[in-house]
Amino acid sequence: MSDPKILETFPNPAPQRDYVIEHTHHEFTSLCPMTGHPDFANITVRYVADKICVELKSLKLYFHAYRNEGIFFEAVTNRICDDLGGALRPRQLTIVADWKARGGFTSRVTAEWKAPKKRK
Amino acid sequence: MSDPKILETFPNPAPQRDYVIEHTHHEFTSLCPMTGHPDFANITVRYVADKICVELKSLKLYFHAYRNEGIFFEAVTNRICDDLGGALRPRQLTIVADWKARGGFTSRVTAEWKAPKKRK
Amino acid sequence: MSDPKILETFPNPAPQRDYVIEHTHHEFTSLCPMTGHPDFANITVRYVADKICVELKSLKLYFHAYRNEGIFFEAVTNRICDDLGGALRPRQLTIVADWKARGGFTSRVTAEWKAPKKRK
Amino acid sequence: MSDPKILETFPNPAPQRDYVIEHTHHEFTSLCPMTGHPDFANITVRYVADKICVELKSLKLYFHAYRNEGIFFEAVTNRICDDLGGALRPRQLTIVADWKARGGFTSRVTAEWKAPKKRK
Amino acid sequence: MSDPKILETFPNPAPQRDYVIEHTHHEFTSLCPMTGHPDFANITVRYVADKICVELKSLKLYFHAYRNEGIFFEAVTNRICDDLGGALRPRQLTIVADWKARGGFTSRVTAEWKAPKKRK
Amino acid sequence: MSDPKILETFPNPAPQRDYVIEHTHHEFTSLCPMTGHPDFANITVRYVADKICVELKSLKLYFHAYRNEGIFFEAVTNRICDDLGGALRPRQLTIVADWKARGGFTSRVTAEWKAPKKRK
Amino acid sequence: MSDPKILETFPNPAPQRDYVIEHTHHEFTSLCPMTGHPDFANITVRYVADKICVELKSLKLYFHAYRNEGIFFEAVTNRICDDLGGALRPRQLTIVADWKARGGFTSRVTAEWKAPKKRK
Amino acid sequence: MSDPKILETFPNPAPQRDYVIEHTHHEFTSLCPMTGHPDFANITVRYVADKICVELKSLKLYFHAYRNEGIFFEAVTNRICDDLGGALRPRQLTIVADWKARGGFTSRVTAEWKAPKKRK
Amino acid sequence: MSDPKILETFPNPAPQRDYVIEHTHHEFTSLCPMTGHPDFANITVRYVADKICVELKSLKLYFHAYRNEGIFFEAVTNRICDDLGGALRPRQLTIVADWKARGGFTSRVTAEWKAPKKRK
Amino acid sequence: MSDPKILETFPNPAPQRDYVIEHTHHEFTSLCPMTGHPDFANITVRYVADKICVELKSLKLYFHAYRNEGIFFEAVTNRICDDLGGALRPRQLTIVADWKARGGFTSRVTAEWKAPKKRK
Repeated sequence: MSDPKILETFPNPAPQRDYVIEHTHHEFTSLCPMTGHPDFANITVRYVADKICVELKSLKLYFHAYRNEGIFFEAVTNRICDDLGGALRPRQLTIVADWKARGGFTSRVTAEWKAPKKRK
Repeated sequence: MSDPKILETFPNPAPQRDYVIEHTHHEFTSLCPMTGHPDFANITVRYVADKICVELKSLKLYFHAYRNEGIFFEAVTNRICDDLGGALRPRQLTIVADWKARGGFTSRVTAEWKAPKKRK
Repeated sequence: MSDPKILETFPNPAPQRDYVIEHTHHEFTSLCPMTGHPDFANITVRYVADKICVELKSLKLYFHAYRNEGIFFEAVTNRICDDLGGALRPRQLTIVADWKARGGFTSRVTAEWKAPKKRK
Repeated sequence: MSDPKILETFPNPAPQRDYVIEHTHHEFTSLCPMTGHPDFANITVRYVADKICVELKSLKLYFHAYRNEGIFFEAVTNRICDDLGGALRPRQLTIVADWKARGGFTSRVTAEWKAPKKRK
Repeated sequence: MSDPKILETFPNPAPQRDYVIEHTHHEFTSLCPMTGHPDFANITVRYVADKICVELKSLKLYFHAYRNEGIFFEAVTNRICDDLGGALRPRQLTIVADWKARGGFTSRVTAEWKAPKKRK
Repeated sequence: MSDPKILETFPNPAPQRDYVIEHTHHEFTSLCPMTGHPDFANITVRYVADKICVELKSLKLYFHAYRNEGIFFEAVTNRICDDLGGALRPRQLTIVADWKARGGFTSRVTAEWKAPKKRK
Repeated sequence: MSDPKILETFPNPAPQRDYVIEHTHHEFTSLCPMTGHPDFANITVRYVADKICVELKSLKLYFHAYRNEGIFFEAVTNRICDDLGGALRPRQLTIVADWKARGGFTSRVTAEWKAPKKRK
Repeated sequence: MSDPKILETFPNPAPQRDYVIEHTHHEFTSLCPMTGHPDFANITVRYVADKICVELKSLKLYFHAYRNEGIFFEAVTNRICDDLGGALRPRQLTIVADWKARGGFTSRVTAEWKAPKKRK
Repeated sequence: MSDPKILETFPNPAPQRDYVIEHTHHEFTSLCPMTGHPDFANITVRYVADKICVELKSLKLYFHAYRNEGIFFEAVTNRICDDLGGALRPRQLTIVADWKARGGFTSRVTAEWKAPKKRK
Repeated sequence: MSDPKILETFPNPAPQRDYVIEHTHHEFTSLCPMTGHPDFANITVRYVADKICVELKSLKLYFHAYRNEGIFFEAVTNRICDDLGGALRPRQLTIVADWKARGGFTSRVTAEWKAPKKRK
């Protein structure tokens, strides 16, 4: 099971400014929980940092940990959203997952994180 | 006649959140009701789930059932919209049908579903 | 002279819903009224039908009738807008004409139809 | 079963010259003989006519007749090659079938026809 | 020096309607005032005509007259904006100049014309 | 009927060298002789000039003259090949006609001209 | 370890003809044997069948079995070549592996199979 | 260390108008502060000039000075934003940095400058 | 008149090897000798150097000197071929000129240089 | 100065077969020896290994070492060719360097290595 504890962070170099950071991972892969067949996606993490930013190499390792996990498109997108929201406590956060062709379909799931108590 | 009863669903894994699910089927084909010639389209189902999500394989079979049906562009888009709206009772739903070249034309029909009693 | 009387229509299959129909004709050609040289365009008809929809084959014939007519970019776009507005009495209607290269220029003319008395 | 007898022909307008005619059909569809799922392909017919050319509309109808037939990629390509070779007796003939995505694969099958007794 | 007096016009064929005319010239070239090296741009003229439209061939000649003129990106875009605004007195006018690669940069300058006394 | 006599020529500026000249016309249109519907093509003229070259504006007018002529793909390609071969007597000549979408097909016809007595 | 024994075959439907079959798998992934990081590739199998053809679903499963195997680009391409050559004994066989971006590089490895005793 | 003092400026040729100037540098490169490996980006400077514009050649030299500097994506984007904001005192300013592939990720950082006392 | 004497050269750094150097200039412009209208082309110089290579900045200035010269497509390609052949005495030399849209045509002229006495 | 001694190798896993390995580095950068401005290229190394293959990470470091070196396009391509030929002693080797836009030009240099005593 992928664990958000492996995510590392560093201090936001410009906390006085609301600016947008967007990382797109082109090599996400997990397994279909019904058939066991591999699924592939591009995952975009778009956020406005508050106190901390996510370190890119640790984000890669966090994504790699899904490689052999069976999980639905809708569920994995929401879990990434919760994990990153919880780890970064950002001012804003959106996850976009673009799933490649599966049975004649392409799919996109888009989820936005809302802090329990938003401070903006 | 394609029957929405073959659509299968599963519980929305994140009902506390309004997030967008978008499935694009690249292999839709039906027949022109005037000439009998085949028509081809990409059909996009974009929705915000409420209690349930549509299972992708059953959605494929639902689309396949149009293969030998004679039906106009405008009518098929609206019927898909009604069928999925009725089966999923989503918070929002839009159907976009992109029809490939026919007699020098490409066509797009876009329909939005509104619940009889919208609960948002 | 192209005549809107050749446009045929059929009843809107979903008049209870405001949905968008868009047909793009990729083979429009007319003549430059100054030089007699051929002009080529993609013409998009985007509308929300009220009681009737335009039948696609008759729309093709309506466009073909411009083949040997000398007419300016601005004038032909507005005439198509008036003809289709008058024939369909739609809830909304936009015509977009994308003219291909002529003397180092590409051109686009976009016109929106407004009913004398709009009923929405 | 698709029948080559529906293919119509007309006399080659330039039999004194070896020139190449290439028609690509972008709307071929048949069924997988194992799963019953639809397959989609672009089919190219490239030939040097001898006495006759194939009429395009009849070629379209010949291709449409595969719509509900269950047949493997390799078999259908060879059958089209045999049917067109037999009907046209061309100086040269190649069939190229480009199959769209199926289970993470795209496929191409290319077959060349050789007359039993080639007369060139 | 390019002279807006060479611009020719014709009466707007649909003055009762606010519609958008857009001409993109793909062959604009002038000289860098510092180095004398040639610059290349696509220039888009997008406007809502009031009483008159610009004639396309005269617009081409107006643009050609910049061929050997040394002028900065920012200045030429504003001068075209002033010249066309003055000549056409349009309801709206925007000039977009897309400059091709120069020293590892591409550049875009976008200027909007406002009539001294706008009558809309 | 398009007449090769309207083709104008000028002396080859480098007759001592076998070099290749290729003109592609992007605006060819004629009519289908069966249905009367318009066909559209890109036509490429590729040749090695001997004593004369074809003047580009006259070649355009020669192509425009097909605008209202009903003629098959195979026939028009061969007629252009014969007309240009006869008018230019080139060292080599190839005509490639790329026909745009018609009934789900695109087509290409390629013909090479051979002089009755080739002098190279 | 991926095992060629899972490859299934069916009789070549046209053994009298040398024709080319090409399957491209867009979802190949294995691991780097040095770092453990995932690698991604498109793998093309291009062959002229002799007595048997490879069944596509079994080929997919054969490729999936590399998912968690650590192996170099050069080695995996050659092993696939040996495995398919041994299983199909084809008249010709080429494997092309296109590796996606890794450390600023893309890579392609192309290997051709030669039967110990070629019978053509 | 890149020094904003090398930025040169010239008077805004149209200060009476709010118009947008956008320069995209396609050749930005710096070093990763953790690994020392090179990073590559396209950097867009989009601004509405007040009294002065930035001279393009000096902007190039300012960007070149980052070539051997170790600095994070987030930090460099904000520093460019501060440097150009301070040097130009523009009415508006946005910096967009598009970082090319690094470890399976592409990244974009977007920062907007706000003057301590904005005068518009 | 453009003068090949402005071409500068430097010694071939690897005269022991036949290797190919290809420079494509994307900003060539001259004038039509009949109408005075500007023509635009990409010009490719592909050669195997013997003793000397052409210096790129001088090649740019040589091309810029055609800016206001009236000359036909066929003639300018051959003149560049002669000028560069004479200045570089290369082992091989090909000039490819790709002319952008003019009157619905794009054109390409390809000329190969042959030394009076070839020494290879 | 970049030093080929940093290149690491590993044994060819299939020395019994002539197969092609191709690595394209998308992040090569060096300096112009005349102006000091940065140059950017894609460098392709295509070879048939004999006893050893080049290890990809060491190849990256070898390329990175050119970052601050002033060297001409022609010279750097030949030096890479000599260095890799000397280090790998391959059966075949080609280097292709595609240089990005510089002063309106793109350039490609292609060099092939020949062993002093070729053993094939």
